[in-house]
Amino acid sequence: RPERTLNEVLFFPSEMTCVEHFFRPSSPHSCFCSLPHGIETSFARLLHHLLSATSSLDLCVFAFSNMDLCRAILALHRKGIIIRVLTDKDYTAITGSQIGILRKSGICVRCGVGSVYMHHKFAVMDHRLLITGSLNWTLTAVQSNMENIVITEEPELVQPFIKEFHRLWVDSDPA
Amino acid sequence: RPERTLNEVLFFPSEMTCVEHFFRPSSPHSCFCSLPHGIETSFARLLHHLLSATSSLDLCVFAFSNMDLCRAILALHRKGIIIRVLTDKDYTAITGSQIGILRKSGICVRCGVGSVYMHHKFAVMDHRLLITGSLNWTLTAVQSNMENIVITEEPELVQPFIKEFHRLWVDSDPA
Ligand SMILES: [Zn+2]
Ligand SMILES: [Zn+2]
Repeated sequence: RPERTLNEVLFFPSEMTCVEHFFRPSSPHSCFCSLPHGIETSFARLLHHLLSATSSLDLCVFAFSNMDLCRAILALHRKGIIIRVLTDKDYTAITGSQIGILRKSGICVRCGVGSVYMHHKFAVMDHRLLITGSLNWTLTAVQSNMENIVITEEPELVQPFIKEFHRLWVDSDPA
Repeated sequence: RPERTLNEVLFFPSEMTCVEHFFRPSSPHSCFCSLPHGIETSFARLLHHLLSATSSLDLCVFAFSNMDLCRAILALHRKGIIIRVLTDKDYTAITGSQIGILRKSGICVRCGVGSVYMHHKFAVMDHRLLITGSLNWTLTAVQSNMENIVITEEPELVQPFIKEFHRLWVDSDPA
């Protein structure tokens, strides 16, 4: 039988809970931090989908300061997932931006050129799964703002984003 | 036969072209303004979908200053489409915001409460069609920024937004 096409919507703000188990799956019960455990939040669903990448991740985000999302990207990078990050030049220089950390770890990062805002917030994983919405990859967006994320495998939605990522990537500044 | 489920993606910036024909469909060839005519842009597709509403429009946008989009909403309102607009309190007071014009015309507008940013940018039409993405309803977003909009009838994506709109509407400030 054909597998069902994934379609999921997440709303934010997301409750702040412990996400250690995503990064240390071998010892799921070992965390004694003060955050709530074992609660499925929107942010946990986002991490779950991100960490399910098996071959590639193309990320196009205006603002990237969320340390847990940075940690997820680094974990994928260590597993050999091919990662490309396209971001806004001005935001990259802002305090708290994780873009420098991604670059230093060897991940390919490019910036939009010209004075135009790169206002996208989408990711395409394994050329198959699209994550897109209003949510910037910041702590404020996740924990405070009213935001949404659409997660879909629908080819009619995924394919245009693959094409647009390619177009923007070719046009962007590798430095 | 079952109709196909609509799935469409629009990317911005959109070329600036004449959109008069959307508002005066009876005289499609009468415009002599200096803008380009007869070009199908992303913005024209957005207007096309918006103006296709036949019964209701629930709009949840952070920033609303685009005069053509305001004109579209007013046109729907005059046709008897039931419109509800949920927006960010702080942005409403900003110069160029069209929210006051919507209110004065009799459209039901509510603002998010508390200090939380209402960062959504989505619309649900006729409880059936979802328009969502990174694009704020401003002129800069449409004409300058790199932005995306997803347009879909997929019930698994539309239904959560209907539910979330209801939740936010009930919680929001009618004043
Ligand atoms: Zn913990
Ligand atoms: Zn014209």
